[in-house]
Formats: sequence, structure tokens, C-alpha cells
Amino acid sequence: MQVRKAVITAAAPRQNRLPLQQLVDSSGEDKTALQLIVDETAAAGIEEICLVIRPEDQQAYELAAGPHLAAIQFVHQPEPLGYADAIHRAADFVANDAFLHLVGDHLYVSSTGVPCAKQLVDVAKEYKCSVSAVQSTRESMLPYFGVVSGPRLPQSQQPKSQRLYEIEHVIEKPTPTLAEQELVTPGLRSGHYLGFFGMHVLTADVMSLISDLTRGDLASGDLASTSNGNKPCLSDAVAALPSRGRYLAHQIEGTRYNLGVKYGLLKAQLAIGLSGRDRDEILVGIMDLLSNRVEGQNVECTA
Amino acid sequence: MQVRKAVITAAAPRQNRLPLQQLVDSSGEDKTALQLIVDETAAAGIEEICLVIRPEDQQAYELAAGPHLAAIQFVHQPEPLGYADAIHRAADFVANDAFLHLVGDHLYVSSTGVPCAKQLVDVAKEYKCSVSAVQSTRESMLPYFGVVSGPRLPQSQQPKSQRLYEIEHVIEKPTPTLAEQELVTPGLRSGHYLGFFGMHVLTADVMSLISDLTRGDLASGDLASTSNGNKPCLSDAVAALPSRGRYLAHQIEGTRYNLGVKYGLLKAQLAIGLSGRDRDEILVGIMDLLSNRVEGQNVECTA
Repeated sequence: MQVRKAVITAAAPRQNRLPLQQLVDSSGEDKTALQLIVDETAAAGIEEICLVIRPEDQQAYELAAGPHLAAIQFVHQPEPLGYADAIHRAADFVANDAFLHLVGDHLYVSSTGVPCAKQLVDVAKEYKCSVSAVQSTRESMLPYFGVVSGPRLPQSQQPKSQRLYEIEHVIEKPTPTLAEQELVTPGLRSGHYLGFFGMHVLTADVMSLISDLTRGDLASGDLASTSNGNKPCLSDAVAALPSRGRYLAHQIEGTRYNLGVKYGLLKAQLAIGLSGRDRDEILVGIMDLLSNRVEGQNVECTA
Repeated sequence: MQVRKAVITAAAPRQNRLPLQQLVDSSGEDKTALQLIVDETAAAGIEEICLVIRPEDQQAYELAAGPHLAAIQFVHQPEPLGYADAIHRAADFVANDAFLHLVGDHLYVSSTGVPCAKQLVDVAKEYKCSVSAVQSTRESMLPYFGVVSGPRLPQSQQPKSQRLYEIEHVIEKPTPTLAEQELVTPGLRSGHYLGFFGMHVLTADVMSLISDLTRGDLASGDLASTSNGNKPCLSDAVAALPSRGRYLAHQIEGTRYNLGVKYGLLKAQLAIGLSGRDRDEILVGIMDLLSNRVEGQNVECTA
């Protein structure tokens, strides 16, 4: 299975400006969040990107894409019709190919040498099926996530398999009770579940599942997980994937940073900076601020 | 002297996107850098703002202005004709009034309860003349600044006067030699000079001085300080102010953060956050990052 295409969604009302924000990458280069996300996909072997945005944001996104502009196709979501609809706008771009999907308002820091998206794409290529990145998530965080469950893959296979699960159930933002009844996954710390990490490799099947959803054709059992009323989200669509074939979850070795939460940009920038070449410079900067020794630290021409 | 108007310049090529960046203010509210700058002027009693931008940025700036939009008049600088020209675009807005001038890519954190811009405006109102905010600046930083010199005001007056200087000379980015010859100011630590802080209260005189400059009418002595070839900067214009009347420098009690330097946004956000209500939350976040205890720290819905 080849994974050469990526779909990045950035049209949601409160998230549409976040990819335009300015950061410094781990090698010390000034980049927009969008450029960092595209770098993440490029490191995973992606060659073509479909960026789902609001029409009125296109000029700003073209500017923010910088050198990556040539690799990006823009698709518009004029109305805020939800997450699943945003992904479905890329159906023509995806055609029959598997694709990497990232949300536009998250950044990722790998805890190994291998970028998070590459960890995920490598698994998808090896197992030739849809794979969602997940992280072990405390019960208290369930209100924020799509959550999956299923048995861990047999240990017989290579070491990586110990972080792989065969997904049987997907529920968006389950209550603790529902999670305890249907989503307990053996091998995790007690009170922990497999929550979506914000990164997926999906087969083109998901596009037809979204069409079914928006036409309301899915069995009520599947729709039970719809948390957005008449605005289906991705979980509602992928919940039907296991019935169509193998669908894996992979526990990524890394951390995701949501730019949309309070101080999200600050935490992402600190995490990226502290993981990179400028770690010492940043630590010194923090120490200077804490000790109020900032005079002359960041002076520059006022003209 | 009333100071009810402010001119904010944000049209310079590498700085024009910085006021659009997203931050969190000291009370924990999400704001753009532009909103923080306008808050700074409002705290100093400013009622009308003239924002000098590139025409193509206006839509983004209207969005970034948020609730302040009604108080802002936009003026365009279509060509990058330099700093002095950008200020002169506001000549009609200023008319004959004194005005507060801030650059659009700096944020300020006061070390007293009084916002930096208010410290400056209070001095201008009391002494009824142009006043530039300055900070004690190491010789090694001279290449980045406009630098002024002159005697400290007599101590007879109120305590504030110990931070006030009667400006006699202004030179943009002086060499160490030139600074040592012409800009040594008694009362500063050795090897330190009075560098511009990026904040000025100016009388309308400065507009005619800029016109003279751009017509090249100033005596060559004044033009000697022109550091931008045929693009005069503010220092080149205010250098002639002392010959027209009293022009003061005020050492601000606070720190300025240039968003345009590497990690400028990070440092500004850390300084603002550590100076505000969320100090402890930010310290905990830093500690978590340093100890890699970030799992679940910043999770959020992926939809």
C-alpha cells in the first residue's frame, strides 16, 4: 500500500487561524504552524497535500505555506458542516488511494528519531490497512477524544506489534460508564483508554462511509456515537471501518500539542524548542525571565 | 498637553505579520499581538489609533483588531519606503496634536503597576513636550538602536525626574567610537547608553521634520545620522527636535519584547504569562516539559 497523499483540515471555526501562527522549528528556522505540519507529512513520504480551508482564508494560507505551496491543493468548506464533512471535501483528491490525515491545529514531537507521522505511515504500509494513531489517555480526558478499543496484536510479530491494536469499537467522547462497559483495552494502565492522537492513515473507504453518514444511512448502532448532532465527526465514520476489514490503532511514540487550547502555542513552541538544537538557548531565556535578567536580552532596531 | 491619538506602524516587510500573531494576555485572555498593543495605548488614555499597514494586509488586521476595530483608522504604505515615511502617512490623522507612537512588532511588560505607555504619556503631559522612551543599553547593542544623549534633569523636581534626560543628540545605530565621542550620558553604568525603547510621544513638529528629510532639506549635519540611505528612519527626524524646543528621554520601568527576533514571540509570551495571573500554571507547564511529564497535559478534541 502506498501513502503518497495527505489531507489536512483547517476550516473549523475556532481553529482556522492556528496554522497561520509563527513558530521556530527544532532546527531553529522560522516557520508557520502550517509549514511544520507539511514538514511532518513530507518526512512520512507524502508528495501531495489537500488542505481543507474556508474560502476567505486562502490568501493567508498561500502566504503561510511558503515553499510548500506547490505541493498543496486547496479545497473549500464554505459552511462549518463539521469534521467528517471537511474530510469528505477531499474525496476527489483522494480518489481510491489511502491517505494520511492530520488536523491543522496540532503539532507533534516524536520521542524517538522517527517523526510521528512516519511511525504511523510505516505501520499502514506494513499492514496494508487503515491505522489510527492513539495514545494512552486518562479517563478524565475522555470528554475530549474519540476512543477505540480492541485486542493487542499477537506478540509473535516484530517488536512494533506491542504498540498495535486491532480496533473493534470506536466511540466519540464516551462517558466514563460507556467507556468502562465497551472500551476497556487489556494491557493499559487501569483507568486508561486508547484515545485518538489526531493523526490517521485511512483507506478511501472512509469517504463512502462519510457519505453514508451524511445521508444518515448508517445503522443506528453506528450513529449512536455521533456526538455532534447533525454534524458527524471522523469517529462516526471510522466506527464502521472494522466491519469492512482490518483497522489498527498504533500507540505513537511522541506527544501531540493542540494549538487551540489555552497556552497551546506556547507549550508547542517550548516542546519543539526544548527537543531541538536551541534547547540550551531556550533554557537560558527561561532562566533570564525567571530571574528578571532580561535587560538587553531581546533588543533590536526599533526602525 | 493632551495625548489622545496613537500612531502604530506595522508595514515593514519582515514585521507586517507579527501583530497578527496569537498570544494570551496577563489576565489569561486570548488576544492578538495587535490587541495587546492597542490595550497598551488604551491604558495610556489613547482614544483614536492610526494603524499604518500594507494595503494587502488590511483584511487580516481588521480581523486581528477584534473589539478595538472601531477605534482604528487604517492608513496604507504601499511601498516599503522606510520607517519615517510610514509615520508620515499618519500626518493627516495627527493634524496638530501630540501623539503616542508605538511600533507594531513590540510588546511591553511594566515592572511597576503602571503600563509602559502610560509612564511615558504621563511624563509628556507633565512636561508638555516630545518624550522618547529609552533604556540603558550596552555598547554591544548599539548596532540595533537609535541612541540619545543629554544631561539628566535637575534633581530639584519630583523623584520621576531622576529617570528623565534633556535630549541633545540623537544618532541611529552609532559606532562604538561615535557613541563614545558624542553620546556618553553621565549617570549610566560605564559602557552603557540611552537606547530607544520603541515608544515615543511626539508633537506634530515631527511630521514637518520628516517632510524636510524626505525632501533632503535638512542640514548635512542632521543627515549624517541617516543610516538607511534614502529611507530615513525616525531617529533622523527626531534628531532635529532639540533645535525646535525641549525634547526629553524617559527611562521606562519595564521591558520591551521584540516579536521579530528569533524566539521573540516565545519570550514575549513567557514574559507576559510569568508577569500575570497564570504564572504558576506556566511554571508547571515548563516543569512538565522539562521532566517529559507531558502525557495528557494538552489533550483536546481532535474533531
